Amino acid sequence: MAAASSDILLDGAGIHATMDRLAGEILSSLPAGVPVGIIGIRRRGEVLAQRLVHELNRRGAAGLEAGSLDITLYRDDLAELGPQAILRKTEIDFDINGRYIILVDDVLYTGRSVRSAIDALVDLGRPKAIRLAVLVDRPGRELPVQADFVGLKVEQSDVPVTVLLTESDGAEEVRVG
Amino acid sequence: MAAASSDILLDGAGIHATMDRLAGEILSSLPAGVPVGIIGIRRRGEVLAQRLVHELNRRGAAGLEAGSLDITLYRDDLAELGPQAILRKTEIDFDINGRYIILVDDVLYTGRSVRSAIDALVDLGRPKAIRLAVLVDRPGRELPVQADFVGLKVEQSDVPVTVLLTESDGAEEVRVG
Repeated sequence: MAAASSDILLDGAGIHATMDRLAGEILSSLPAGVPVGIIGIRRRGEVLAQRLVHELNRRGAAGLEAGSLDITLYRDDLAELGPQAILRKTEIDFDINGRYIILVDDVLYTGRSVRSAIDALVDLGRPKAIRLAVLVDRPGRELPVQADFVGLKVEQSDVPVTVLLTESDGAEEVRVG
Repeated sequence: MAAASSDILLDGAGIHATMDRLAGEILSSLPAGVPVGIIGIRRRGEVLAQRLVHELNRRGAAGLEAGSLDITLYRDDLAELGPQAILRKTEIDFDINGRYIILVDDVLYTGRSVRSAIDALVDLGRPKAIRLAVLVDRPGRELPVQADFVGLKVEQSDVPVTVLLTESDGAEEVRVG
């Protein structure tokens, strides 16, 4: 795709400002005295989760643990089913029982990856609550999932959203089309 | 509890009118040419699902299938965990692959029963989409679940909501407190 055919919704500064706002919203939502875990869905959710943890620590949040989940969407062509979300890998080195979990992803679209991530977390224990934070909320939900913290809400349907982050992609922008 | 200590939010006529409105909203949301399944979470979600199917058929909706899921919340005291939602029984006698599913429950509260119901459905196949319809939406979410169709939104936190339906309870009302 030529760059001219797509619209840049956020540049590097815009992503930075958006993540700062999300960090503030998350910080003011944290219940007092409850341990917190920030868990990113790989690959870009993990990058965003690491940035959130850094910003929350900078703002004085204490006792945050960070982790990641690797959910892969794969197409089971044999059964002619659509893409299925499966869990590939978990890097969560703390007890999630009783913990307030912020699950982080770059784009919320069908909700299937988030469902798989919630499943994986619930298999690990009983978190006090799981909240969802996403950089971009895009129409096209196939499951009744919603984000609690949204960086940018895209209203256009059927238009792909691309998120690029320095750590994973060597560039920094959110664009549609 | 004495009746005087609780507030009746909906009486029988109010529940009827609310379900009629939900049926209209659901009907206008149905995608053309896609088979539909209305699946209630037992016991009261199943009653509401049966009423919805009746009303949707009356309004000319074609090819609806109805089913139910039995999700039980039980407390695993041995592990000192909180209540866990488990699937006890499924009565779904149709293929859910490619089907537009309306999941129906009486009250949406923590979201844990809904999560278990979604899990059970996804184990059965790949629905085109799962939408959630509830008579009452109550604060207290522990998972990032939302309802697509809401009869009545209760704003008060920490106040129990009671739903009574003729078929399951011999009375008909929604009350708080």
